[in-house]
Amino acid sequence: MKALILRAPHELAIQEQSLGPLPEGWARVRMLAAALNHRDEWIIQGQYAKIRYPSILGSDGCGIVVDVTGEDRSLIGKRVIINPNQEWGSDERAQSSAYTILGMPSAGTFAEYVDVPVHRLHRTPEHLSDEEAAALPLAGLTAYRAVFVQGGFTPDDTLLITGIGGGVALFALQFAFAAGAASVAVTSGASWKLDRAKELGAHCGVLYTTDGWWEEIRRAFGGFDLAVDGTCGEQFNRLVAIAKPAGRIVIYGATAGPVPMLDVHRIFWKQLRIIGSTMGSDDNFSQMVDFVARHRIKPIVDSVYALEEYEHAFARLRQRQQFGKVILRIAER
Amino acid sequence: MKALILRAPHELAIQEQSLGPLPEGWARVRMLAAALNHRDEWIIQGQYAKIRYPSILGSDGCGIVVDVTGEDRSLIGKRVIINPNQEWGSDERAQSSAYTILGMPSAGTFAEYVDVPVHRLHRTPEHLSDEEAAALPLAGLTAYRAVFVQGGFTPDDTLLITGIGGGVALFALQFAFAAGAASVAVTSGASWKLDRAKELGAHCGVLYTTDGWWEEIRRAFGGFDLAVDGTCGEQFNRLVAIAKPAGRIVIYGATAGPVPMLDVHRIFWKQLRIIGSTMGSDDNFSQMVDFVARHRIKPIVDSVYALEEYEHAFARLRQRQQFGKVILRIAER
Repeated sequence: MKALILRAPHELAIQEQSLGPLPEGWARVRMLAAALNHRDEWIIQGQYAKIRYPSILGSDGCGIVVDVTGEDRSLIGKRVIINPNQEWGSDERAQSSAYTILGMPSAGTFAEYVDVPVHRLHRTPEHLSDEEAAALPLAGLTAYRAVFVQGGFTPDDTLLITGIGGGVALFALQFAFAAGAASVAVTSGASWKLDRAKELGAHCGVLYTTDGWWEEIRRAFGGFDLAVDGTCGEQFNRLVAIAKPAGRIVIYGATAGPVPMLDVHRIFWKQLRIIGSTMGSDDNFSQMVDFVARHRIKPIVDSVYALEEYEHAFARLRQRQQFGKVILRIAER
Repeated sequence: MKALILRAPHELAIQEQSLGPLPEGWARVRMLAAALNHRDEWIIQGQYAKIRYPSILGSDGCGIVVDVTGEDRSLIGKRVIINPNQEWGSDERAQSSAYTILGMPSAGTFAEYVDVPVHRLHRTPEHLSDEEAAALPLAGLTAYRAVFVQGGFTPDDTLLITGIGGGVALFALQFAFAAGAASVAVTSGASWKLDRAKELGAHCGVLYTTDGWWEEIRRAFGGFDLAVDGTCGEQFNRLVAIAKPAGRIVIYGATAGPVPMLDVHRIFWKQLRIIGSTMGSDDNFSQMVDFVARHRIKPIVDSVYALEEYEHAFARLRQRQQFGKVILRIAER
């Protein structure tokens, strides 16, 4: 089969790769579409723990099951998405030490076929196109856990989502609205992304590159009860400053790096909670897929590239031009 | 009456002060003993919000009720402790914006008499001496909320308490043991304090001034589930590093200042929670007093000074020589 192979740091190439025999209880999926994640980009740049070469990256995908080993072969011919969790373990509160994510070290979805344990497969919600379905797994799971499980979002909460346009941030926005959110603020470094978010229903959009951006959120809503942040960095203390008493800040990433001089006084005086969140349990994944199907949520696709155009696709991610997920179309149904 | 008056920053003096009329629903308490808190020291140094001069400091005290205005005068002649909360409000999750603490702006317990609303009074648990009772309110309330309400401590948790010897840290230790703690580590900058904590039952005592102190806790218990920290500062990332997956770090103070370069990656990857805690609600106060009475917990008194010896008492607090609470004895029963 054809696959996008990471041979060394910054060294990607499309190559022929042979498929091994399918282990017992596994399924072979012919990929239709896959989605890019920042995780893939960090691995390409060599900034990830325990990178192996060569590797096939890709944690997200939608495809057709072409083979299953084991008794229940009912999924053959069905359109599926793949739960990217591997070995989360039995503790809902955190993943086990054996936990990995599909696509390095295990072969991922940037290929014509991917082999995974059959219990990783979920039927694709019917209202989704192949590209929309491919956009869902990793970012949808991360957003679902951040907003509902770790963040404990309720419709009474004033919600702040930073960095709107990123995959997780957009799912957080869509999920919160589906759950009845009434007061949602978003931030971005690009005003056109704020406009797009307002079209999606955001009540307040703030350019975080302007002085005093946090005051705008305070004026609009008096602060926030729950923030979902994948940025951290220098601006983080602004979130601490405008959090309402007993506010929660869920962090799921740190694209702006660590937080210099964390303002701990405000954290204890206001009884705030800073809550870490990564990916989500297998139960969280099932809940998320059910939620998307029930509310007929359509993941936002930024752009679609052929597998061979991977360089353009990653460039779009790197340049932070995307609003929604960047998709690789691998094959037609 | 005689009172210890803060006239300006760093300017304390014992002076005569007249008592005003007692408002309806208030009680007058003849003070027997009061306890020092770091809060008093910060106010003396001018490092607190909205300081007023002159002020009578003191948030903790035990005394005898000598007068009550209103119908229920049953407390007259009884020994009481005072809930230092004022206007916490109706939200258990956080104090209201009107919240203050007894002793600046309202006149506090470093005086022969203090006037407070009668609903601030609790009967002193009978097993406590006057000094032990005076030691309890502010630090006991802070520890109770940090450990049980914000920290959600259960006996299965491995617990780390930093800065043992401080009032809150010692109550946290005593409360956790009363609740069935089986694995408790403590840190201090003084080895004799670690020895004292081990006599109280701590399983592991670590000198945080030694290189690699955190590795000792990892070796002993594999990390911690819950840390109760009043320090923050440079060492905070060590707590983040040795927290077990889904670990919680409750912060109730920051004697070492803000945290430079918070390690957010570990926070989200390990699904950690940093939880702010200050004081506690009125319900928390009642629960704490009941808990202390039920388990016959004896607050640890470091030293007792006469009111006139206040300079020596504050010097002991400043020099961090204390193990337990520093008490001012104001009158005999």
